[in-house]
Amino acid sequence: MTDLTPSPEHKFTFGLWTVGNPGRDPFGDPTRAPLDPTETVRRLAELGAYGVNLHDNDLVPWGTSAAERDQIVSRFKAALEATGLKVPMATTNLFGHPAFKDGAFTSNDRRIRRAAIGKAMHSIDLGAELGAELYVFWGGREGTEAGIAKDPRDALDRYREAIDILCEYVVDHGYDMRFALEPKPNEPRGDIFLPTVGHALHFITSLRRPDMVGVNPELAHETMAGLSFHHGVAQALWAGKLFHVDLNAQRIGRYDQDFRFGAEDLKEAFLLVRLLENAGYDGPRHFDAHAYRSEDAAGVWDFARGCMRTYLALAEKARQFDALAEVQEALAAASTAELADPTAPQGAADADNLKAEVDQLDDLGARGFFNERLDQLLVDVLLGSR
Amino acid sequence: MTDLTPSPEHKFTFGLWTVGNPGRDPFGDPTRAPLDPTETVRRLAELGAYGVNLHDNDLVPWGTSAAERDQIVSRFKAALEATGLKVPMATTNLFGHPAFKDGAFTSNDRRIRRAAIGKAMHSIDLGAELGAELYVFWGGREGTEAGIAKDPRDALDRYREAIDILCEYVVDHGYDMRFALEPKPNEPRGDIFLPTVGHALHFITSLRRPDMVGVNPELAHETMAGLSFHHGVAQALWAGKLFHVDLNAQRIGRYDQDFRFGAEDLKEAFLLVRLLENAGYDGPRHFDAHAYRSEDAAGVWDFARGCMRTYLALAEKARQFDALAEVQEALAAASTAELADPTAPQGAADADNLKAEVDQLDDLGARGFFNERLDQLLVDVLLGSR
Amino acid sequence: MTDLTPSPEHKFTFGLWTVGNPGRDPFGDPTRAPLDPTETVRRLAELGAYGVNLHDNDLVPWGTSAAERDQIVSRFKAALEATGLKVPMATTNLFGHPAFKDGAFTSNDRRIRRAAIGKAMHSIDLGAELGAELYVFWGGREGTEAGIAKDPRDALDRYREAIDILCEYVVDHGYDMRFALEPKPNEPRGDIFLPTVGHALHFITSLRRPDMVGVNPELAHETMAGLSFHHGVAQALWAGKLFHVDLNAQRIGRYDQDFRFGAEDLKEAFLLVRLLENAGYDGPRHFDAHAYRSEDAAGVWDFARGCMRTYLALAEKARQFDALAEVQEALAAASTAELADPTAPQGAADADNLKAEVDQLDDLGARGFFNERLDQLLVDVLLGSR
Amino acid sequence: MTDLTPSPEHKFTFGLWTVGNPGRDPFGDPTRAPLDPTETVRRLAELGAYGVNLHDNDLVPWGTSAAERDQIVSRFKAALEATGLKVPMATTNLFGHPAFKDGAFTSNDRRIRRAAIGKAMHSIDLGAELGAELYVFWGGREGTEAGIAKDPRDALDRYREAIDILCEYVVDHGYDMRFALEPKPNEPRGDIFLPTVGHALHFITSLRRPDMVGVNPELAHETMAGLSFHHGVAQALWAGKLFHVDLNAQRIGRYDQDFRFGAEDLKEAFLLVRLLENAGYDGPRHFDAHAYRSEDAAGVWDFARGCMRTYLALAEKARQFDALAEVQEALAAASTAELADPTAPQGAADADNLKAEVDQLDDLGARGFFNERLDQLLVDVLLGSR
Repeated sequence: MTDLTPSPEHKFTFGLWTVGNPGRDPFGDPTRAPLDPTETVRRLAELGAYGVNLHDNDLVPWGTSAAERDQIVSRFKAALEATGLKVPMATTNLFGHPAFKDGAFTSNDRRIRRAAIGKAMHSIDLGAELGAELYVFWGGREGTEAGIAKDPRDALDRYREAIDILCEYVVDHGYDMRFALEPKPNEPRGDIFLPTVGHALHFITSLRRPDMVGVNPELAHETMAGLSFHHGVAQALWAGKLFHVDLNAQRIGRYDQDFRFGAEDLKEAFLLVRLLENAGYDGPRHFDAHAYRSEDAAGVWDFARGCMRTYLALAEKARQFDALAEVQEALAAASTAELADPTAPQGAADADNLKAEVDQLDDLGARGFFNERLDQLLVDVLLGSR
Repeated sequence: MTDLTPSPEHKFTFGLWTVGNPGRDPFGDPTRAPLDPTETVRRLAELGAYGVNLHDNDLVPWGTSAAERDQIVSRFKAALEATGLKVPMATTNLFGHPAFKDGAFTSNDRRIRRAAIGKAMHSIDLGAELGAELYVFWGGREGTEAGIAKDPRDALDRYREAIDILCEYVVDHGYDMRFALEPKPNEPRGDIFLPTVGHALHFITSLRRPDMVGVNPELAHETMAGLSFHHGVAQALWAGKLFHVDLNAQRIGRYDQDFRFGAEDLKEAFLLVRLLENAGYDGPRHFDAHAYRSEDAAGVWDFARGCMRTYLALAEKARQFDALAEVQEALAAASTAELADPTAPQGAADADNLKAEVDQLDDLGARGFFNERLDQLLVDVLLGSR
Repeated sequence: MTDLTPSPEHKFTFGLWTVGNPGRDPFGDPTRAPLDPTETVRRLAELGAYGVNLHDNDLVPWGTSAAERDQIVSRFKAALEATGLKVPMATTNLFGHPAFKDGAFTSNDRRIRRAAIGKAMHSIDLGAELGAELYVFWGGREGTEAGIAKDPRDALDRYREAIDILCEYVVDHGYDMRFALEPKPNEPRGDIFLPTVGHALHFITSLRRPDMVGVNPELAHETMAGLSFHHGVAQALWAGKLFHVDLNAQRIGRYDQDFRFGAEDLKEAFLLVRLLENAGYDGPRHFDAHAYRSEDAAGVWDFARGCMRTYLALAEKARQFDALAEVQEALAAASTAELADPTAPQGAADADNLKAEVDQLDDLGARGFFNERLDQLLVDVLLGSR
Repeated sequence: MTDLTPSPEHKFTFGLWTVGNPGRDPFGDPTRAPLDPTETVRRLAELGAYGVNLHDNDLVPWGTSAAERDQIVSRFKAALEATGLKVPMATTNLFGHPAFKDGAFTSNDRRIRRAAIGKAMHSIDLGAELGAELYVFWGGREGTEAGIAKDPRDALDRYREAIDILCEYVVDHGYDMRFALEPKPNEPRGDIFLPTVGHALHFITSLRRPDMVGVNPELAHETMAGLSFHHGVAQALWAGKLFHVDLNAQRIGRYDQDFRFGAEDLKEAFLLVRLLENAGYDGPRHFDAHAYRSEDAAGVWDFARGCMRTYLALAEKARQFDALAEVQEALAAASTAELADPTAPQGAADADNLKAEVDQLDDLGARGFFNERLDQLLVDVLLGSR
């Protein structure tokens, strides 16, 4: 059996807020005590993780004085140095504070929008100080329940303005940092702006510095809307915009579950891992998930180990699948590789030929595509039946 | 009471396939006889519609000889002339024929992809002949059930190649025609490429002639994925890409229902109509819907009348809503107009001020946004209670 | 225009936890200060409500001493007497405390199950003291994320045992009280036992005292699963088991939203109100909802007023709809009343005739059911176009 | 590696309509030729199936004369005898004919209701002739799009009347046959009556001969509504009402997909198979599914083999899982077996003790439930990592 032990080269990361999740939910109180961030660093390093990510207020609670802030940050940096753990990604909490209840960058209240940009600037400074090369924006409060209260076109204008300003800020400060937008369809707002990977990819093309900005697709978020996550990630890769990825598990059409990676829909998880590995994605594999609320402190580390173990198992399955002769035969029967061939290299100059080929459709309708065989081979490999 | 009688100036359109839907579904046989296209033209004109749209095979059945084709088209054009009805939009059926079972522009079989492009060329010729200024591409078969059978990045390459070639074809032939892509998340495929308005808007930015191509969002399609349709349409408008719009009704998370416009979710329908009217959208209002299968031939025209009647009623409600003093007060209390004000006109040059304003967040958290009042006013206006 | 002012005879009720909802959600802190229960009583009475409902810990926080408890209860009873407001329904909080993280009546830990039953007994005593005639059980924690951790058949055994014991407890104490089970499909658990009205109705038939127990369907809960709420309520009415009803608004396939009644899907809300009114349901109309998180303290009362106003508006629409001649004609054309006629009063004795009538199906297939006309009349009435 | 070859003792069954599905869908024509029922019998027997199920019109097309009918049936019986294949279940097509567009047993038109009962009687005769011991009722057309057109309470009355009459018919004719109701939430109707296993189980308790009637839960149908299928099956088992089961695969919130068993959500499929095997369910394992539309005739048999192979693989995984020492430890840590212990054997007589135990809740809140460990062990076993 393959070794499923994680090590930093696998680039597994967790957020302070993920392993530190205390198990509070809309109907219940916390079930676990807060975790000290330096303790988190120590434990993650022991487990073989590569890095730890954070929101500003995960490390420095809201309302902390400047002096205290520096002390906290120093202590955290010391823990990073001691363990070798990185902070590959940082982000701003623009959703927890009551002032953001109507949005942060898209609040109807201009004062709040200004403060939101200011808070992001402070937080970018912190990220840069910790060496983060990627900065994520999840606009969890940028949306509406009462659609009548906001013209969504104005909201997109303000959203763009904020990201443009923050790009400029990063460039002005000479930070070596790129941005990634993280889409989500709903929760905590009724409808969130930039609800899917597609909407975010399009929005990026409208920015002043589109090259600086990519996406951070999250498995749970696309899945909530019933969209194929590996298709969404593929469109991001196709556009050269997969700057980061958030891995977890989720059932379609439900509250945001953020379960352990692999806990739901193993086939989709397999397709995703195979895509990431085959595409040569070399960024972090970030587990934006948390332990079930039923777990005590020990369960949190079972959770973290499980995320990494299943990723490694699926990556191994992907290699095994692609190496099987039956699979190669079935892929050939399905004409899978042929999809990479240009259809009409001469373009519209080929129009007469293309039009003439329509007559062949009745004959072409008879062929099979062997998708049942191929998909069953995948199930066989997943279950170890082959 | 306002007059709710439709007339051509309202730009209401139907498809031959919509009023002509025979009521066949996956579990049952047709319940209505086929409609002669010229009869459809006559009835729609009588009801006050502006135009009729079509797929190639709605008018010219698959397998028709060239001679017959010309006869059918002449007869149809005569009916158009007699009634003054337009054909504002045309499209190709790239989903019904068995050969497209694995995709048309993204079939793994290159021969099928070539024939699909050829079929679209023929069909574009027909559209041009009928005066269509807009050509829609709904890639209903461009997707997978067995995700392993296609690399989605190859599929996007082929999709782009096809649209690029067809743009070139239109330009070569001097047709006065623009394209619109119609996204859909699933059905009839397990997962369809370009599943939402966002994905399509992004894809368009990758084309050789992005200016020629916009989107045709469909209410039912975005709603199937639980996305806000008026937000999606707003992002298309914001991008200058709303070239067409498909109106109907749909419940979230269900099979493609294509119900009469207004039959579900009147509040979302109101927000959409208000957006289209206020944004000055001047394209067709196309009802891509059909009568319930329980209806006989007469029910089809009840259905068509209902679509237009409800649109006009909602447009009138929108004017009434915006004119109410209580509404203007509530919008002001919600700071709705303030969202149009730039947040920081000086950009990152304003960083010090922006950072300093973070301290005001605790105070700003206390204000209310009066969304309950505003939304209830909307319900009052919808129900005629105010 | 009809008077839409609520009064106690309309039997509108709210929960302490509904108007008292502080706006905390999984991603953000409270946005509103706690409400004193006696203040809630005063405000609800002013607005024309009939009653106020509560969980034990809404009134008496967890950890309160016996002496304090009595003081709190006295003060609350004084407010009720002063205003005439009733407490028609009470319930137990068996979901907020960390001990219930794996379930209350169905926790794997027997000690927790025992304490859960004990807590319900204390809480039933409180309900009886406040005059509640109905006691609701919402088993929000009775479920799983990891399905492997519980045999669901054991869980149903334990659930039944708990309800049986509590029925016995009520009878032993001579309380004039009935029970109602409130189903929900998921959230806060991945999958909750008794997920729909149907599952709960069936479960009740297995109890020792089925006559004492009915259901409390909640609009948001059935809608989360995409089920028709008015169909679910109808099955409960049909079974004589609609003991209570929870009204709010929700979009399908989303986190539990608990919006203001009427804020989503006005057609379904209309069908529900018409059903309740026509069926002679005389229990409370309970609004299990809360103000949007964007609202301040004033927005809470806008929210409460809106719930009642829309109910009254829809009840008036229902009367108006049923009184229209066009509606009566359309209902006749749809053969709606004929559904109340027995199909074959002689039962299987009529077999030969029934078999012979199969031959008429081809002819019968031609008739229409006029559902488009009927549904458009409904939309017309809702929008006040007719 | 375990032998995954199916044989009749495994009780795998398919429907004539499943392997015979021609690949027609709402947007496309058939992609496969019809299969001769006797050819189906031969192929299924070769593959190791136990039986073949059918609707009346799968074998005897609508409109067949009595003489032809007898010839068809004889030929089919001969094929059964030759191969040893059984017909364990039969059912009536009450959804395909246009006359059923408004319902069959619940059509508003009494003549259609009568003919529907008559058609079911004929069809029951056919089932009895073929030796079917189970008769399934899937009320696919019993529902509404326009909820206003039917009082759902009347519909339930008529539904009950029809089943009562048909039970009487079976008893009168001395047939050795039980009934099973198959619930579905929607499609082809907007909302179907008896939408879930729960609603059907409750409905059965209202029948005159409840003992004769059970349920036939279908994986795809419960999953469409996002409900846990293994929980639904468990409630049916708990009630002694699992008379049959329909296996396939489906994604939540989509059109009815009926994919190959195991093609989606392997964890839920595992939990289901483990439950069926451990509960001693000895009825047929019916695959109500069909090959992807992209497949040719050969793909159909790949599909059929895959369904059985994955079931056997999961049954083997279940045995392996339960035999692992780590699993037994984790189940003990999760207190899984303790859920089978009565909570309070003395009932309400134990009230004083139960109330006193509430004080222990704060202590009990600290324990963990080890669900992460347990669920990861399950993933490990599924993937063969352990």
